[in-house]
Amino acid sequence: MVRENVNEQQRSAQLHAVIPAGGSGTRLWPASRSSRPKFLLPLPGPRSMLQATFDRLEPIVPHRNMLVITGGAHAVAVARQLPALPDGNIIVEPGPRGTGPAIGLGAALIARKDPDAVMGSFAADHYVSNPELFRSTVLAAAEVACHGYLVTIGITPTYAETGYGYIRCGQALPPSGDFDVFRVDQFKEKPDKETAQAYLDSGKYLWNASMFVWKASLLLDEMRRLLPELHQTLLTIADAWDQPERDDVLREYWPGIADVTIDNGIMEHAERVAVVPASFGWTDLGDWHSLAELMSNEQHENVVLQGTHLAEDTRSTLVFGNNRLVATLGVDNLVIVDTEDVLLVCNRSRAQDVRKIVQRLKDGGDHPLT
Amino acid sequence: MVRENVNEQQRSAQLHAVIPAGGSGTRLWPASRSSRPKFLLPLPGPRSMLQATFDRLEPIVPHRNMLVITGGAHAVAVARQLPALPDGNIIVEPGPRGTGPAIGLGAALIARKDPDAVMGSFAADHYVSNPELFRSTVLAAAEVACHGYLVTIGITPTYAETGYGYIRCGQALPPSGDFDVFRVDQFKEKPDKETAQAYLDSGKYLWNASMFVWKASLLLDEMRRLLPELHQTLLTIADAWDQPERDDVLREYWPGIADVTIDNGIMEHAERVAVVPASFGWTDLGDWHSLAELMSNEQHENVVLQGTHLAEDTRSTLVFGNNRLVATLGVDNLVIVDTEDVLLVCNRSRAQDVRKIVQRLKDGGDHPLT
Repeated sequence: MVRENVNEQQRSAQLHAVIPAGGSGTRLWPASRSSRPKFLLPLPGPRSMLQATFDRLEPIVPHRNMLVITGGAHAVAVARQLPALPDGNIIVEPGPRGTGPAIGLGAALIARKDPDAVMGSFAADHYVSNPELFRSTVLAAAEVACHGYLVTIGITPTYAETGYGYIRCGQALPPSGDFDVFRVDQFKEKPDKETAQAYLDSGKYLWNASMFVWKASLLLDEMRRLLPELHQTLLTIADAWDQPERDDVLREYWPGIADVTIDNGIMEHAERVAVVPASFGWTDLGDWHSLAELMSNEQHENVVLQGTHLAEDTRSTLVFGNNRLVATLGVDNLVIVDTEDVLLVCNRSRAQDVRKIVQRLKDGGDHPLT
Repeated sequence: MVRENVNEQQRSAQLHAVIPAGGSGTRLWPASRSSRPKFLLPLPGPRSMLQATFDRLEPIVPHRNMLVITGGAHAVAVARQLPALPDGNIIVEPGPRGTGPAIGLGAALIARKDPDAVMGSFAADHYVSNPELFRSTVLAAAEVACHGYLVTIGITPTYAETGYGYIRCGQALPPSGDFDVFRVDQFKEKPDKETAQAYLDSGKYLWNASMFVWKASLLLDEMRRLLPELHQTLLTIADAWDQPERDDVLREYWPGIADVTIDNGIMEHAERVAVVPASFGWTDLGDWHSLAELMSNEQHENVVLQGTHLAEDTRSTLVFGNNRLVATLGVDNLVIVDTEDVLLVCNRSRAQDVRKIVQRLKDGGDHPLT
């Protein structure tokens, strides 16, 4: 499905991108914290997930067209991690309101400058193993978007994952170059194991990677129809964006915005929604186990993401070290995460439950450690 | 077997003690290091093993009668840990030569002042759970020593340990108060599992805890007979002890001394050797597993020696923490030792093999970590 000889730079001169950089990733604790969310971490490294997202898009989205939307607590880190991004392209939300307002604001700001702009939205904390194929897919999706669709890029599932939502493919649409295109039949919540297996077996379902491509104007049209109040607020904010009163307007209107994801608020109810199936090696790196799976090339291999590991009779163990030696002896299937103030030793099969520990710490008032 | 109403202070006015403080305890790495041997560590805490040894003896041995023999690298730490010990009672060996020369020098120095002195020798890195019973046993052994025996205190085995040497009890001698006394039939090297079980089943064997009580003059007599060269050298050094040339003499003679343990060099060949069986809860705390065994009161209990442990679904795990939180999830039977520059995660069943890691680091030139 790789499109050959694409002059990416040329084809995408007008492509825009919004990168929502939020969420804390509590399942990657203690590396990720409220104060140091997953997207700022070098997972799998050496660049941070945010930097890797930026790098991945850079060949098809000019810097001036890339908007990173983040919270005030992380603005400085984002600025430092992405020195090539123009100052004005880092948008600081006064508070988290979900992807709907964040991406909607991005769309409003983009449409103000270029009403015909095609834009994509890509989370700052997802991993892609084949960036070139990723870019070809985005460009194919952009072509579909030009035909008046809200396009999502769905990931062809490789196993019965229960941690992702799914997209059910409907009627086939004309392919975009080498890429198949379907209407979206339905968005599905995270399934149980049995359902996930049935989805996988049917061949009709894709993982929902919350990866979208559309004309900014079309998203705003759908938003006007489906979330009229939000739409109005975002236009008000966008109108004030280049004015001295921007901050006042933002502070006045943002707190009143209701939380909504772009999936729930728009995509599940919109009229013309298409999906481009993709296989560029995607994972949301939701927990340490999935990270270990991603990084190990052979069975029982140990994975060292950072630091130094001295392994004696050790298998299938992931080490996210710090500046001290991590020595292991006679152990397997462990996740060992060593940070300045917390050490985690966890069975890989229990990686999903790391958030329980974070919750216990929060309940106990130990917020600095969460 | 507890002797009631002993006026310990009175009975032991003349008792002397030598505490050889050497050895590194590589199986307790990374808490123990060449630069920070086991006897200086708070195992199980809060006092160091050396301090606990001192505390244990203090009620029956006056400070002026206690000699700690250690290497130059640890003299400062010993001095700081035992502020109550007079300056002159910390003896700094120019180099390690085994327990034979160390204890022999102690005996020579004691006999110089008091030819009739009864002295005991007690390693600085052994653990005793019942110090009161320990003291009663030592006083009983001291009475036997007054009758012209080299006395060892043997530990009644509680399981078939293969990591200790054994003592075979021979003919019964008159009891000392409430304590049985036997002639020693034979000293046995560390046995294999089957042999250890046979020793245990026979009821005739005791663990060799390298714990001795004797008249200093009798030890020196046996040393003159069995190790005449060492005997002569030690007398030469002892004669110079209060003279200006002490250091010169020590530097001249000590390097030429051959390594020998008091067990191999004296006890196994001496004439009148007796043993007092004891059950005061003794272990040499040779590795992390034995420490965990010692500290856990019920099955599957987690043990925290230092630091803070947040355990989620965790069993039979020992944590020797540092100043960071140690969180564990879905693990069991682990030893987790967190130090400033090294973190060890080890299966408890492999605790004996920790020295392999130390050896690998030494082989790799990583001496600061060993």
